[in-house]
Formats: sequence, C-alpha cells, structure tokens
Amino acid sequence: METPLTGRNPLPDVGERLGAQLRFLIEVDKLKTVLRQSPLAAASRRENDAEHSWHLAMMVTVLAEYADEPIDVGHTITLVVVHDLVEIYAGDTPLYDDEGRETQERREREAAEKLFGLLPADQARELRALWDEFEGRKTAEARFAKAMDRLQPLLLNWMARGGTWHTPGVTADTVRARKSVIGDASAPLWTAASAIIAEGERRGWVAPGS
Amino acid sequence: METPLTGRNPLPDVGERLGAQLRFLIEVDKLKTVLRQSPLAAASRRENDAEHSWHLAMMVTVLAEYADEPIDVGHTITLVVVHDLVEIYAGDTPLYDDEGRETQERREREAAEKLFGLLPADQARELRALWDEFEGRKTAEARFAKAMDRLQPLLLNWMARGGTWHTPGVTADTVRARKSVIGDASAPLWTAASAIIAEGERRGWVAPGS
Repeated sequence: METPLTGRNPLPDVGERLGAQLRFLIEVDKLKTVLRQSPLAAASRRENDAEHSWHLAMMVTVLAEYADEPIDVGHTITLVVVHDLVEIYAGDTPLYDDEGRETQERREREAAEKLFGLLPADQARELRALWDEFEGRKTAEARFAKAMDRLQPLLLNWMARGGTWHTPGVTADTVRARKSVIGDASAPLWTAASAIIAEGERRGWVAPGS
Repeated sequence: METPLTGRNPLPDVGERLGAQLRFLIEVDKLKTVLRQSPLAAASRRENDAEHSWHLAMMVTVLAEYADEPIDVGHTITLVVVHDLVEIYAGDTPLYDDEGRETQERREREAAEKLFGLLPADQARELRALWDEFEGRKTAEARFAKAMDRLQPLLLNWMARGGTWHTPGVTADTVRARKSVIGDASAPLWTAASAIIAEGERRGWVAPGS
C-alpha cells in the first residue's frame, strides 16, 4: 500500500478528526499527478485529473440550463469535484481502452475503500455515497455530471483536431456510442455534441463510421 | 487583446448562445497554464490555478462543518471554482508580492470584463456577481471560500518544509497577518492554521516573528 503523503512530514497535532481530514486533503494532492489521455487546448501537454475535475465544475456552472430535468447545481458540482478521486490509486482508464475497462470497477472500488478510509467514518460514507451516486447515474444530477465528463474531452479533442479520436480502432461510430450518455441528461447538448463529431468526421479527424 | 483559443479552430454552428458558452468553456482551459508560487505536495513542480481551484472545492466539501456561520456548501464550492478565472488574463499575484498587489485590483477588473464578456450577457453578469461576492467577503460563503484560499497553500508550504514562506522579507508574523482571514470564517481552522505556522517557525521553515 502506498504511503500517504503526510507520512513523509506529519502535521502537528490539530485534534484527531481535523487531523484525519487534513491528511486526506493533502493526500488528494496526488490527483494533480494522474494524467489523462486528453491534450489541453491551452498548452502542449496532457491534462491531469484535478484540472479535468475543475473544468467539469465550470461546465456545470455554465451549462446547467440545458439539463432536461431540473438539477441542483451545487450538488452536481460536488459530484464532479469528487468523481475521479479513486483514480489516485486506481489510475485513469481511458474511454477507448476496452481491456482496462474490464477491471476498472474492481480497481476503483478497492481504491475508494483505501482513499475514503483516511477520513472520519461519517465523511468516508458521505464521499463514498457521492461517488456511488455519480457512477450509478440514477439521479438527474449524476446524469448531468456524467454528460459533462463526456462532453469536456470532446471539446478538447475538437481543439486538438482529433486528439484521442485517433486511437487505433476508434471510428466516429465508436465516439458516438461512448458519448451518447450525454443525451440521457440533455437533448440540446447531445445535438451539439453530435454536430461536433459529424464535423470532425467530415474533416478526417476521426475514422469514418459505417 | 489575446485571441480566444477557438479563434484557431472555430466550432461548427451549435446556435449563438450555446456557441458563446462553449467558446468560453474552451477559453478557460487557459487557467491550467497559470502558475502559482505554491509547490505541489505530490510532485516537484508548481501548482496551477485550475488544480488549486479544484483543491479548494475539495476542502469546502470536507471542512464545511468548521464554518462559524451556516454556509450553503454547493454555493461555496461554486465561488471557489470561479474565484481565480480572472487570472487567465491578469496572471497570478503572489500573496507576498506587495508591488503586484497594488495594481492587482485594476488588472483583475479589466480581465473580468474581457473574460466574462465572452458569455451571453445574463451569464456574464452572473459570473461577475459570483466573483464580486468572493472578493467582497460580505457573505458567510465568501468568507469561508477565502479561508480555504488561504489555508490550502499553507498546507502545501508545510509539506514543502517552508515553500513560499522562504520568500525574502517574509517572517512568521507576515504569514500570520496574511492568513488571519481564516479566522473570519472559522475559529477552529484558524487555531489549526496557527499551530501549523508556529511549528513551522519552531523548525526554522519560516523566519521568526518578533
């Protein structure tokens, strides 16, 4: 098991509960080092999970009006802020990596136990519940959060003239299939996403669908 | 004036309002390239504003229980998600850079006009209002958000055995003075922050106060 970052440099005594919370908050600094496949639009490097999670929060703030069902914006933002935490120990599983996706659920469940276990028990349960809500997509907020998670890399791929759309074996049909969950949360955003994919296909930034 | 990122690669037509929103959401990718002085705990490099904003959102989620006044957690998270956007054009002004801080207000106001001006007028006003709320510190949510903004780099400085506390001219008294706004939002968090600063001073990670 990985040593928590504060193992290197323990905090002075600030009380048991707050001490656990601060150790957790320092540990999650590691999310800034989990690299995704997506290239940034603003620089020539890959995006990390912390940047990605922040970007989703911005997208919820600006695009909430397109949700097909009413959503609590603050709660939806909380979901996207925590949704990738488990990747601190489980790593990022790229959307077009079918092999990685088979073991993803187990790896992420184990990571959740370990990471949320750093928190006081009541908060460990709360954060776990937020993550389960996001993954389960049973609430309007979770569906919208997931839609942002699929729309954001699509915008970055557009700016990179293809980006991860160039993954071997991926076609415009693959992209449409993986992105279609956007339509479970928002008809207008799915229309827009489809237009962007279609134009990428027309320009040869993704292999043509059948 | 800087060209928006989408100037390089315009999106296909998705309607005027949504088009403006997506252009804004791509433009804010630049927040990931605005470097702060703070060193990461998890890697040997400086933190950027997007990572920092995400980290504050996590801190609000976990530490909200310490707010001296009741706060709306979702709204507080929204404030921290948008609080540094103006630095996309105005740059980061380090906490211990007195010269930069004199022109900071004007530079950031101009940046806000330019950046939020990419959005439809109603949303430009909304985001501007969120930023003004954060800066004004007149609501309990804004005071707590600002407290997180001061507490987070303190944790990173602790992990770096000093970090920006080693800035020439800075002493433990300077640090205490700049961090004291934490106490405007949360007595227990200010007690904890004071203990961390005092222990840093004892270890020689910051020059002694008078």
